[in-house]
Amino acid sequence: MSPRADRLTKRLPDAGIDVLLVTNGVNVRYLTGYTGSNGIALVGPETRVFVTDFRYVEQAAEEVDASFDRGTSPQHLIEGVEDSLPADEFRLGFEAAHVSVNEHARLRELLPERIELVATTGLIEDLRAVKEPGELAAIRAAAQLADEAFAVLIAGGFIGRTERDLATRLEYEMRSRGARRPSFDPIVAAGPHGALPHARPRDTKVKAGDLVVVDWGAQREDGYCSDCTRTVAAGQVNDAAREVYELVLDAQLAALEDIRAGAAGREVDAVARSAIQAAGHGEHFGHGLGHGVGLEVHEAPRLSQRSDSALVAGNVVTVEPGVYIPGEFGVRIEDLVVVTDDGCEILTSVSKALTVVD
Amino acid sequence: MSPRADRLTKRLPDAGIDVLLVTNGVNVRYLTGYTGSNGIALVGPETRVFVTDFRYVEQAAEEVDASFDRGTSPQHLIEGVEDSLPADEFRLGFEAAHVSVNEHARLRELLPERIELVATTGLIEDLRAVKEPGELAAIRAAAQLADEAFAVLIAGGFIGRTERDLATRLEYEMRSRGARRPSFDPIVAAGPHGALPHARPRDTKVKAGDLVVVDWGAQREDGYCSDCTRTVAAGQVNDAAREVYELVLDAQLAALEDIRAGAAGREVDAVARSAIQAAGHGEHFGHGLGHGVGLEVHEAPRLSQRSDSALVAGNVVTVEPGVYIPGEFGVRIEDLVVVTDDGCEILTSVSKALTVVD
Repeated sequence: MSPRADRLTKRLPDAGIDVLLVTNGVNVRYLTGYTGSNGIALVGPETRVFVTDFRYVEQAAEEVDASFDRGTSPQHLIEGVEDSLPADEFRLGFEAAHVSVNEHARLRELLPERIELVATTGLIEDLRAVKEPGELAAIRAAAQLADEAFAVLIAGGFIGRTERDLATRLEYEMRSRGARRPSFDPIVAAGPHGALPHARPRDTKVKAGDLVVVDWGAQREDGYCSDCTRTVAAGQVNDAAREVYELVLDAQLAALEDIRAGAAGREVDAVARSAIQAAGHGEHFGHGLGHGVGLEVHEAPRLSQRSDSALVAGNVVTVEPGVYIPGEFGVRIEDLVVVTDDGCEILTSVSKALTVVD
Repeated sequence: MSPRADRLTKRLPDAGIDVLLVTNGVNVRYLTGYTGSNGIALVGPETRVFVTDFRYVEQAAEEVDASFDRGTSPQHLIEGVEDSLPADEFRLGFEAAHVSVNEHARLRELLPERIELVATTGLIEDLRAVKEPGELAAIRAAAQLADEAFAVLIAGGFIGRTERDLATRLEYEMRSRGARRPSFDPIVAAGPHGALPHARPRDTKVKAGDLVVVDWGAQREDGYCSDCTRTVAAGQVNDAAREVYELVLDAQLAALEDIRAGAAGREVDAVARSAIQAAGHGEHFGHGLGHGVGLEVHEAPRLSQRSDSALVAGNVVTVEPGVYIPGEFGVRIEDLVVVTDDGCEILTSVSKALTVVD
């Protein structure tokens, strides 16, 4: 039995559908356990079907939850499920945020007329946003190995090494500790480069006096991700940098204090944002406060000015305010946390006191 | 001036559109030079517009081709282009293979009624399939650094090391030579595991007597990818393995002989496939012969049984027959080549004689 598919099935009537066609790879993985590419699933009250092509038959046999019937199709995968579909009229939901206009047209062409295709959004993403204990353990382990890799990086010193060299080393240390890959291309951004929230590592050496923003995460073999940012001082930095660092840290701590089941994403964002605005840096904090992390490094829920939903226990989110001063420096401090009934558990163990590295 | 946007503009009338809305990130990069996320472009006879959000304004200023007007939008990016659109009725093409059903509905909602949205497929992908000299140089450099990384891996020996350890090392060596990342997660698959065409590295040690399939590639900072596979012998392998190795190599060489501008993708595939079928291994070669490589590691054109198009000079494709014997071993040999008027230039420099590693 697949409890996830059961939970999904309960949501189908509200979405106005009888069966959901799952084509997004991460959602297929979440529901069935299948980790390869080119697999689809159908889930309904009496339907549990998984289909892939010949290349992945052995992998599917090993991985796919036993409650799913398995099929293959040499052409379009939907042709491998047709025999499993109800014989009368029914409403088949599809994932409208992931299915392309072309793919939708192809489905319409291949499916019998008695099947009505109905757009749905976020049905599985909403389930994924609330983590099970096993998922929390996986994310905790991802965060821990990423923290260990960072400790090694720090110990090796920054000054005189290029951003790229540091990023490459960080990735290698994560992989050596069991990461399948970084959960995103790590950011190592020194001095003025740190003022770009999505800076890419350059062949530029870190200098004494630079603040250096490092944003990194690990994705484990089981798919679960971590995400963390620290800003460190390469040697002694000036007072302006220290002041902004303390401001961002205070804002981050205040937001962490506010997190609990029931808090609105917008409200938590506002706690950090108002602290930064009060110090005159509102325009220098241009992104949202945080985002969910799980099988994807960016997933539901969001903590931002436009976030309507309330947090629930079991959400895993980042809390990452930043201040970016163009041409000078940037500071971002990010923890990964689990939302609990009365607060949150911080999964990141790296110190947040301003660390001075050689 | 952007010659790529000019070439694209010439194709718009045949696609039945006046202007193309480009939302696929790789296509945006190809046309405008922009390498960040969340950027869109509009291209038409009198339209060259690029839009992103505030986070990427500096990056866009550095990267985007000067022939494009640049805009920003805090909400949906399409709202940043409306002022640049013709004032009368016109047909706006969108990339139907990449735009989701939800995104299409949102565009329809945001755009004035006078604009007709028209589905298009492959307009830019077709341009990308024919490489310019600068692109060929980039791919050549990617292949070379990947080859160098492999030479280091081989020199370190395979027997007693895990597949994962070898894959991690290979990635590190590529990054150290300037790869931004591997162009895909490298495959290192020993013994029976090599019979899975898309095997993932395990914590399993390579044993003496294993054939080991290694499939790897580098993506450079400029986005261009390489792709290569070699199958090596860990110590001495048995005669059955040697025979299949020679068969796959002969099939690969025969296909390379057949490649030239004008050859059909299907025809080149058939050359390799018929050699493998004649030896009784037809059912053990279940994938296509090859695929284009460029800014993506899988792109146009395809070499397969279902490939209708003919090769043209400037295509960069892989040639990678394989034989996979379930429960025993697999062999795949893959080169990256540039199609020329009278043949092809092989970009891969690694020896194809069966290499015995310690």
